[in-house]
Amino acid sequence: MEQKKLFELAANEVFEGYVLLRSFNLKTGQTGKNYIDVTVTDAFSEMNAKIWDYQEEKHSQFKANMLVKLRGTVVAWQNSLQMRVERIRLAEPSDPVHIEDFVPSAPMTGEVMLAMVEAFIKRIRQDDIRFLVQHLVTKYKDRLLYWPAAQANHHSLRGGLLYHTSTMLRGAEAMCAIYTQLNPDYLYAGVILHDLEKINEMDSTELGIVSDYTRNGLLLGHIVQGAISIAEAGKEVGADEQTIVLLEHMLISHHYEPEFGAIRRPMFPEAEMLHYLDMIDARMFDFDKALAEVQPGGFTDKQWLLHNRRLYKIK
Amino acid sequence: MEQKKLFELAANEVFEGYVLLRSFNLKTGQTGKNYIDVTVTDAFSEMNAKIWDYQEEKHSQFKANMLVKLRGTVVAWQNSLQMRVERIRLAEPSDPVHIEDFVPSAPMTGEVMLAMVEAFIKRIRQDDIRFLVQHLVTKYKDRLLYWPAAQANHHSLRGGLLYHTSTMLRGAEAMCAIYTQLNPDYLYAGVILHDLEKINEMDSTELGIVSDYTRNGLLLGHIVQGAISIAEAGKEVGADEQTIVLLEHMLISHHYEPEFGAIRRPMFPEAEMLHYLDMIDARMFDFDKALAEVQPGGFTDKQWLLHNRRLYKIK
Amino acid sequence: MEQKKLFELAANEVFEGYVLLRSFNLKTGQTGKNYIDVTVTDAFSEMNAKIWDYQEEKHSQFKANMLVKLRGTVVAWQNSLQMRVERIRLAEPSDPVHIEDFVPSAPMTGEVMLAMVEAFIKRIRQDDIRFLVQHLVTKYKDRLLYWPAAQANHHSLRGGLLYHTSTMLRGAEAMCAIYTQLNPDYLYAGVILHDLEKINEMDSTELGIVSDYTRNGLLLGHIVQGAISIAEAGKEVGADEQTIVLLEHMLISHHYEPEFGAIRRPMFPEAEMLHYLDMIDARMFDFDKALAEVQPGGFTDKQWLLHNRRLYKIK
Amino acid sequence: MEQKKLFELAANEVFEGYVLLRSFNLKTGQTGKNYIDVTVTDAFSEMNAKIWDYQEEKHSQFKANMLVKLRGTVVAWQNSLQMRVERIRLAEPSDPVHIEDFVPSAPMTGEVMLAMVEAFIKRIRQDDIRFLVQHLVTKYKDRLLYWPAAQANHHSLRGGLLYHTSTMLRGAEAMCAIYTQLNPDYLYAGVILHDLEKINEMDSTELGIVSDYTRNGLLLGHIVQGAISIAEAGKEVGADEQTIVLLEHMLISHHYEPEFGAIRRPMFPEAEMLHYLDMIDARMFDFDKALAEVQPGGFTDKQWLLHNRRLYKIK
Amino acid sequence: MEQKKLFELAANEVFEGYVLLRSFNLKTGQTGKNYIDVTVTDAFSEMNAKIWDYQEEKHSQFKANMLVKLRGTVVAWQNSLQMRVERIRLAEPSDPVHIEDFVPSAPMTGEVMLAMVEAFIKRIRQDDIRFLVQHLVTKYKDRLLYWPAAQANHHSLRGGLLYHTSTMLRGAEAMCAIYTQLNPDYLYAGVILHDLEKINEMDSTELGIVSDYTRNGLLLGHIVQGAISIAEAGKEVGADEQTIVLLEHMLISHHYEPEFGAIRRPMFPEAEMLHYLDMIDARMFDFDKALAEVQPGGFTDKQWLLHNRRLYKIK
Amino acid sequence: MEQKKLFELAANEVFEGYVLLRSFNLKTGQTGKNYIDVTVTDAFSEMNAKIWDYQEEKHSQFKANMLVKLRGTVVAWQNSLQMRVERIRLAEPSDPVHIEDFVPSAPMTGEVMLAMVEAFIKRIRQDDIRFLVQHLVTKYKDRLLYWPAAQANHHSLRGGLLYHTSTMLRGAEAMCAIYTQLNPDYLYAGVILHDLEKINEMDSTELGIVSDYTRNGLLLGHIVQGAISIAEAGKEVGADEQTIVLLEHMLISHHYEPEFGAIRRPMFPEAEMLHYLDMIDARMFDFDKALAEVQPGGFTDKQWLLHNRRLYKIK
Repeated sequence: MEQKKLFELAANEVFEGYVLLRSFNLKTGQTGKNYIDVTVTDAFSEMNAKIWDYQEEKHSQFKANMLVKLRGTVVAWQNSLQMRVERIRLAEPSDPVHIEDFVPSAPMTGEVMLAMVEAFIKRIRQDDIRFLVQHLVTKYKDRLLYWPAAQANHHSLRGGLLYHTSTMLRGAEAMCAIYTQLNPDYLYAGVILHDLEKINEMDSTELGIVSDYTRNGLLLGHIVQGAISIAEAGKEVGADEQTIVLLEHMLISHHYEPEFGAIRRPMFPEAEMLHYLDMIDARMFDFDKALAEVQPGGFTDKQWLLHNRRLYKIK
Repeated sequence: MEQKKLFELAANEVFEGYVLLRSFNLKTGQTGKNYIDVTVTDAFSEMNAKIWDYQEEKHSQFKANMLVKLRGTVVAWQNSLQMRVERIRLAEPSDPVHIEDFVPSAPMTGEVMLAMVEAFIKRIRQDDIRFLVQHLVTKYKDRLLYWPAAQANHHSLRGGLLYHTSTMLRGAEAMCAIYTQLNPDYLYAGVILHDLEKINEMDSTELGIVSDYTRNGLLLGHIVQGAISIAEAGKEVGADEQTIVLLEHMLISHHYEPEFGAIRRPMFPEAEMLHYLDMIDARMFDFDKALAEVQPGGFTDKQWLLHNRRLYKIK
Repeated sequence: MEQKKLFELAANEVFEGYVLLRSFNLKTGQTGKNYIDVTVTDAFSEMNAKIWDYQEEKHSQFKANMLVKLRGTVVAWQNSLQMRVERIRLAEPSDPVHIEDFVPSAPMTGEVMLAMVEAFIKRIRQDDIRFLVQHLVTKYKDRLLYWPAAQANHHSLRGGLLYHTSTMLRGAEAMCAIYTQLNPDYLYAGVILHDLEKINEMDSTELGIVSDYTRNGLLLGHIVQGAISIAEAGKEVGADEQTIVLLEHMLISHHYEPEFGAIRRPMFPEAEMLHYLDMIDARMFDFDKALAEVQPGGFTDKQWLLHNRRLYKIK
Repeated sequence: MEQKKLFELAANEVFEGYVLLRSFNLKTGQTGKNYIDVTVTDAFSEMNAKIWDYQEEKHSQFKANMLVKLRGTVVAWQNSLQMRVERIRLAEPSDPVHIEDFVPSAPMTGEVMLAMVEAFIKRIRQDDIRFLVQHLVTKYKDRLLYWPAAQANHHSLRGGLLYHTSTMLRGAEAMCAIYTQLNPDYLYAGVILHDLEKINEMDSTELGIVSDYTRNGLLLGHIVQGAISIAEAGKEVGADEQTIVLLEHMLISHHYEPEFGAIRRPMFPEAEMLHYLDMIDARMFDFDKALAEVQPGGFTDKQWLLHNRRLYKIK
Repeated sequence: MEQKKLFELAANEVFEGYVLLRSFNLKTGQTGKNYIDVTVTDAFSEMNAKIWDYQEEKHSQFKANMLVKLRGTVVAWQNSLQMRVERIRLAEPSDPVHIEDFVPSAPMTGEVMLAMVEAFIKRIRQDDIRFLVQHLVTKYKDRLLYWPAAQANHHSLRGGLLYHTSTMLRGAEAMCAIYTQLNPDYLYAGVILHDLEKINEMDSTELGIVSDYTRNGLLLGHIVQGAISIAEAGKEVGADEQTIVLLEHMLISHHYEPEFGAIRRPMFPEAEMLHYLDMIDARMFDFDKALAEVQPGGFTDKQWLLHNRRLYKIK
Repeated sequence: MEQKKLFELAANEVFEGYVLLRSFNLKTGQTGKNYIDVTVTDAFSEMNAKIWDYQEEKHSQFKANMLVKLRGTVVAWQNSLQMRVERIRLAEPSDPVHIEDFVPSAPMTGEVMLAMVEAFIKRIRQDDIRFLVQHLVTKYKDRLLYWPAAQANHHSLRGGLLYHTSTMLRGAEAMCAIYTQLNPDYLYAGVILHDLEKINEMDSTELGIVSDYTRNGLLLGHIVQGAISIAEAGKEVGADEQTIVLLEHMLISHHYEPEFGAIRRPMFPEAEMLHYLDMIDARMFDFDKALAEVQPGGFTDKQWLLHNRRLYKIK
């Protein structure tokens, strides 16, 4: 995608290129005339824009989070730059742009990661575990392709939920090879299910951006929703009672500490391991993200989510 | 029931009366002969007893927790008294004894308390709440009549679960009259459901004595089991989604503090009130029980379950 | 009170009506001329106002928290509206306004609530308890009529202290009916005395607005002040030593947790119950207040005083 | 005091000497005959003793904690040695023994330590502080001479309360010399008053052995009792209100942490310093006591009262 | 090793076989004669034994933790069995027994595990890290072959320290493959060094049994000793200052939480990962050990070291 | 130093006097011309200043934290006053100003305080302790003369580290006189060494102003650095192993609580005392500083570093 960066534009310059609509709101000016107030981004920075000649039939098709092609002139207004939109149209499949270029995204496509997860499901040998997991993954397939793992914390990426899951599966595979007492069936199932109900805990756009928590998310959370969901799926696929209870236990214990939402601490080895694989994947992500912004030999600012640590980047 | 108390017996005295079998175990003596080792209680104290002339056809019908009529002679053996059983038969309906006389029991019969609970259910105006609650109470009716509320703590009585529930309902009624913003439908439902899954969390004899926690009780606990159970019942009776979620929330928040098993803190007034009614009823029971053993003006020993407090009995 | 709301006023409009003076400060303008800077409120919103023609003899009688009748013209100044005061006089008894209309107040008058409290005092059967409680209530009678229960938290209303106390007394009455082991004499006394020394802990205007904590309030707090006050009153009325010690204990234990200022945890049932009645009344107030601002089916913002919970309003 | 140590006695030996009666209880033997079961100590070890020829007129004058002269024969009984008492009489003033030789005692007499404390009181320059402190010390003078500072922890010695107080006064004096911003009047007063109400918190024999906590001690504790006591004394001597409040504040803040009973943290420098002087004196005592039992280069067992530390004795 | 198990022996039976001396103490009987009191074990159970004909020249060569061949007769004494030793000699290299058969040991020999560790050291690419690690491993080589990782907790096995280390290295290798941002040099070094100073923290016999903590272990602990040891080794091999500081940081942060002895929380990804690998290996060991004692479908007792959890063994 | 205070200056006034350069940065104006933006202070307030006629040869010698003589004219610009610098030169030894007048400084010179510390070193009787301490003090002598004890908290003064140390030594001396079981050698050594490595933990200018923590300070902290430093110095001077270990232990235990960085709690009396002396000196400083800003009878604002206490200044 070859186009001028928004932050390179100067007053009076004309811009033409693809941008993502962060917000798109109809407003009424002091003179009573309608116009549209827009925030656009090209993934590097944001800029305010205005569509002064609002026409309902023409502009009502647009809304926030759409990818559009746009032409406009940059104007200086009150110490900052603003774009006066002259042309706007939706991006089309044939356009040389991808949504991943405009929002923080997992390094693989949802389809690829889903295929990885499903390959692990196939490796689950115990039928009822495999049926139960497949049942739930199939149920949420469409949203899984882009769902993030969080609103703001680790893996708050487009596709972050699958990315977190599929990376943890690799860790699970490695640990089963070292600690042969582990039953991979339960560990793989636990990894795949542990955050799955985040799909009902939060509302996400297709861009993987969480607008808010849902009512059920706030009142119950993905852990309890997850246990209920396993209970239902278990009944559906006719799973053994032990199978259902153990998977529910993995859900309700994977946060480990009561103050982080665990109702039980893990009571069998696969549940214990699930917790550590989850922590490792979250922390490797967080460290990576925080350290991306410092030079070798330097320290980050205090990271609130990491006990206020300042992280060091090795020279 | 007029019979000599066990603790009044002296060596060589003959006892005849009703006792509860606490334990009843076949053993083999040093000479290779079988005998039965029994612990009997008359609710005031326990005594060891032996059936030396074991006969399978005659004695295999007895087991722990049965109420029997027994005749025997008291013998002194190694600094303590023991009973040599001479006759034993099961208590019969026509015998002038009741199980409540031998085990700690709620002050009302299960039937009376259940009727009280059901009267409250009828007062729930919103149909789906009422249907859901009635569905679960009906499901557990038989066990509810004698189920205790705990293995060792508050309301570890025969019928303790219903006693705890029905007393809390009276508190709920009073609070709804004072705090008129409360919706009695949710509060009554929450009270009735909050501990109901203790029926699957623990195994209890019909005497209301808990032998142990169940597998599901240990791995999930009555809170999560309760939420799942509400989800299932809600589907069964076709309850509104909000209804189900709010009742589930009441379950998972009623312990209030994460370290006591709460997954959420209460997020609407009825859930908040449920917690306090639960605490009050538990604490009034605990104080009463602890103070029963001291004289006015005296202090109890340190009560481990009450932050090691020593309680005072007002003169 | 029929008058235009302050937030309905437009520039150049003339306002005439009753307002409360939130602040009233003499200032000196850049030209060296004195004027008065005022903040007025009609309970719905606030507006800044100026008295440009300051005259000491005329204006020195006014100060913050007075109710006045005022006439002025609205002027626009630097993006906001301001009132130029033309006439101002103190509200008089014959004016059709009440202070309760201008500040957050308990839903009953202080006189009515005090009568309720005194009715409960009469029901205390044990003489020395009744004398002691009456002694202290009489001592603080005047201030009790309008004193709030807090600077910012629960029951920070004009008359909030009596409102909190009288509502708790109704709860106490209900609980004594259910838990008959409770001695109502101690419970009623405890309820009435538990926060009474807030009268010396904070300074409040007659509007029930707390300006600050007092020296003694900061160095000792109402709990210790309360215990000392009971000691003195007990001596005064010749109370039995046990009576005094038990009431003192109720004071120093009613916050329950050391980190909230409790010196002992409650050691008899009436002290235990006092704590829960206090919590319930505070929490019902807090929930009510927070939920007043949201629509059914909606959530409040995070409530800092309630462990950062977001509360839900049932549809 | 030249007499054989109890632990040196062998079976059949005759003992004659002074011992302290730890316990002295009338019992009835299996044959129905009365005898007295005694525990005696010579400060080095304890031994059980029996008075078989119980005579009421002769033996009813004795009770626990008395110092007696005793003659008896050592007999072996069930793997241990026991003394058969042949003669017993109360120790008399002319006997060459002192109570301090038999119970753990402060290294100075109560009279000497009290004189030290009173010398410090005289150095308090502000009249009302000095009056108030003197008033309370005078009130408790008699018991102060032998009162311990605790039942089991630091300074659980005969005279331990005065020992703790007078040592802290020396620390206070030193600190006032280094930190000249400190007002010695308040610091000395705070030191003298801080634990004074332990006199009403516990019951102690004249041997400085605490039998139990009192009702008021359990329900209120010495901190709250102390604040009340200062309030009363302040009124008595007509102290300034600030003086009273500050001394009360020192009392209620000297334990520093809420979980150790502090109601406020110290809010002025003298209160802050009081806490540290108290901690230092307690800890120096505890370390000394624990280390007395180990060899240079060795470690003590885990000290439960010191966060389970094992202490090291420097070689 | 074909010999009768100690727990299979009956009174009067003659035993001949190899046993480990758990204790071996010279005592003096009531008659004044010397004998030796021994505890022997064959790894399945322990038995008390006596050598009644003590002869200094013959028996002074034996002491606890030696492997011996022994013949004796089983005698019944006071409700338990005891062995009267008739012959005893040290086990010789040619005897068909190994020390590993008598004490809990790692599943590989020390030599094999050390070779694994050294293979990882060779894979460290950065010279100064490799030199430093090799320097310390070489220094402790001899003791490493049998040193346990703890006195009582996880990996309290003969060779447990190397077993813990080498298993963690396999985990480190797997994690570096998944999280490619990790620098294996630091991670491998951190794993190898993290517990190395346990060699100076505790005293262990060659059987891998810890008798006690050392003075330095108690006063400093292996974490601080480890940091000092890295500082010294770093100087020795001329390591870069950053290298030394980062390895020291890994040591002082690997316990993660201050209350478990961490001085810093991990501040770079390799230090973070080290902590989780350590936790995983410890927990897999603990779960395995605890679950070894229960049947499928059963629960262990409460595990004190695992937050009192009862663990479940999957059916 | 007689010169007009910066805060007394009015627009258009000419200032001449000594100021400290807080910052001194070359900037480029909108017209492309270079100028210098300066912040100056006279210890009472700060003022922005500009050097418009920037000349490299003339101005490149200046930088932040230098003391200069300056002449300039005060100009009003955007609601605030600014100085246009006309002349600037470095302060010279002959100028009548001292750096202590411009930055918060200890009340004694570094030289005097160092002499005090060295006098205490001489009083250490045990050779290896004295050698070790002297070795480290000598090593850091130059920086000690001005080094602060903190970036923002207690003793963040020029010379604060020595001030804190030397005051604590006086406390140590007093405590050794009262608690004669203390070994002054260890206590004095512990006091002198306890914060010494703050010299490598933070970077300080010669003004005693900390710019930031160092890499080693962030990754290790002064406690671990201190232990390592003692290990090295101990080797250097040939100290006894016990000496080294005990001093290291004092370092790692002096923060007492794990959450404040203590690795061990103090395990011998001198280590215990060190902690309290440290706390006392820090707290006396903090109280003094906070109370400096209030009137007698008044309260400070909440002090975040002192558990949010509001401190009271006695009337």
